[in-house]
Amino acid sequence: MKKLMNAPDDVVKEQLAGMAKAHPEITVNIDPSFIYRADAPNKKVALISGGGSGHEPMHTGFVGMGMLDGACPGQIFTSPTPDQMYECAKAVASDNGVLFLVKNYTGDVMNFETAVEMVHGDGIKVQSILIDDDVAVKDSLYTAGRRGMGTTVLVEKIVGAAAEAGYNLKQCTDLARKTSQNGRSIGVALTSCTVPAAGKPTFELADDEVEMGIGIHGEPGTKRIQMKTVNEITEHMARCIIEDGAYTRTVREWDTEKGEWEEKSLTDEPLKSCDKVIALVNSMGGTPVSELYAVYSKLADVCKSKGIKIARNLIGPYITSLEMQGCSVTLLKADKEILKFWDAPVKTPSLRWGA
Amino acid sequence: MKKLMNAPDDVVKEQLAGMAKAHPEITVNIDPSFIYRADAPNKKVALISGGGSGHEPMHTGFVGMGMLDGACPGQIFTSPTPDQMYECAKAVASDNGVLFLVKNYTGDVMNFETAVEMVHGDGIKVQSILIDDDVAVKDSLYTAGRRGMGTTVLVEKIVGAAAEAGYNLKQCTDLARKTSQNGRSIGVALTSCTVPAAGKPTFELADDEVEMGIGIHGEPGTKRIQMKTVNEITEHMARCIIEDGAYTRTVREWDTEKGEWEEKSLTDEPLKSCDKVIALVNSMGGTPVSELYAVYSKLADVCKSKGIKIARNLIGPYITSLEMQGCSVTLLKADKEILKFWDAPVKTPSLRWGA
Repeated sequence: MKKLMNAPDDVVKEQLAGMAKAHPEITVNIDPSFIYRADAPNKKVALISGGGSGHEPMHTGFVGMGMLDGACPGQIFTSPTPDQMYECAKAVASDNGVLFLVKNYTGDVMNFETAVEMVHGDGIKVQSILIDDDVAVKDSLYTAGRRGMGTTVLVEKIVGAAAEAGYNLKQCTDLARKTSQNGRSIGVALTSCTVPAAGKPTFELADDEVEMGIGIHGEPGTKRIQMKTVNEITEHMARCIIEDGAYTRTVREWDTEKGEWEEKSLTDEPLKSCDKVIALVNSMGGTPVSELYAVYSKLADVCKSKGIKIARNLIGPYITSLEMQGCSVTLLKADKEILKFWDAPVKTPSLRWGA
Repeated sequence: MKKLMNAPDDVVKEQLAGMAKAHPEITVNIDPSFIYRADAPNKKVALISGGGSGHEPMHTGFVGMGMLDGACPGQIFTSPTPDQMYECAKAVASDNGVLFLVKNYTGDVMNFETAVEMVHGDGIKVQSILIDDDVAVKDSLYTAGRRGMGTTVLVEKIVGAAAEAGYNLKQCTDLARKTSQNGRSIGVALTSCTVPAAGKPTFELADDEVEMGIGIHGEPGTKRIQMKTVNEITEHMARCIIEDGAYTRTVREWDTEKGEWEEKSLTDEPLKSCDKVIALVNSMGGTPVSELYAVYSKLADVCKSKGIKIARNLIGPYITSLEMQGCSVTLLKADKEILKFWDAPVKTPSLRWGA
């Protein structure tokens, strides 16, 4: 294992130290560890996300104007604890409340649910929305239901802009739910990554193999296949997303009035001809942007052939698995509200425009 | 070799096809291959760079408002040809002329010199400035003198903003020369990269070795050393830059009046205490941003201990070597003029703020 690090146990702490030095507009709290934006307008709904580290820039790189107010990084590929989320919420909450954006992994879901109850206990209005967009597998290592993938980045950007524009907690929650339901993703790995504390690759892939449907922690995908051309791989991924049918599952959302969990059945509708989408072509960390453009080229062709219009795109490393080579593709159905907030200014360490 | 590609010979072409689909504001010319910005103001000085592909996002990802007007990508790690540069210049030139920004590699220098003469022959005012900022080695595989490294990205941003603001050709040339002279870089490789046409790694590194002073094509560096901590590696790199003495060399610049080459002796002054700098911590392609922040953390400490103030920073993959793991560090002494143009809006596929 060769990484630019000091000791495996200090990787997250030292990355946060670097962020604090590079971005003085972001405040880093060490114990419990969370980072937040100190310059948020007084009355805005506070947006918080978090999860295991190792997916940078998500989430820490997305704290700032027009996106997240706070992020709670766990150890590598390990959920943050409820007290990280609770202390982060207290640091950024306004009278208008806090919205947690939670990727669907069992540990994250459980800990964010505990944090919701702790935050509510302090008299702070709180909500949370689940992101479960990976069409590759239903139920997987670490997850019941679909895993949270690239849609997370898009939800953080879009709802972040809405919160900045003055949406209240209910409006932010409704927009987050809609945006989450509109996004579908799938990933492919060309190589494994190595978790620093483990010191060896999470899995092995032969020189001519790729893992289709990989998770962002190296969880097994749908199948191992022979390495193919980028056109074949991309067409397969695009079809998995576009031809995916309706998806129904039960989620738990917090009822801020009653102070209790409520079960909701949600159905995501499939993409159809004439839909507009935001397309994210994302590096898993070790694949350079040049290869992502070859993916985008074929993705654009497949979308066009299906009558789907890519209205916006984002191409680069945004939700990674350490240094894993490979990529993920996300298509997010975008209406006028979503596009307006996508286009709004954002100023974070790793996503920035218009500011 | 596993890459997201179709055939080794089509890698550059397909990447450009993806860029054209993703960024309709950029025009791609296929034969000879160059890309350019169609929406540039009529009278601005046109900025063009180019070089071998495989360093993306540089240069193609930096074409747009406030940065380059055109980029000429060669095959992977291979200089573009004079006719690419000549046709690109004709596509973007205004009455105010064209400035070529050239990284110091023998093939690039030779071909851009030929292009200068061709463009001049067409009655277009033209200048070119060399970027030679790598403190690791003097004379190397492919290069006489110092190699062009991370300073290139900063020169393109800064002079791009100046051209956008209405600087004339002489002003742009003077600013490019100054900015180039103010920057110093060094790189380190943890792994090799694989050129698609070669199909195997350019060099081999043992599991516990790194190559210090690596070039962006995998050219040998100053030495192979045992893998060390990120603090040790970063301190070594920072000291190589900060303790580097004055550097004098002869460059050739085009005399637009006489229509002939003129030799100039240029001396770069070393960094000194109280200097302000722009710091670039750059991924060689396969190293994720999380590790770059550990580098930045130590770099900030070393600069502080030397009295050097990091006024701005840029952290991410900007000048890469395909999927090579490793990083490079650039420190660029920044005066008010440089900082003003650094902060100005930029809107390109891979560098964007304020627009």
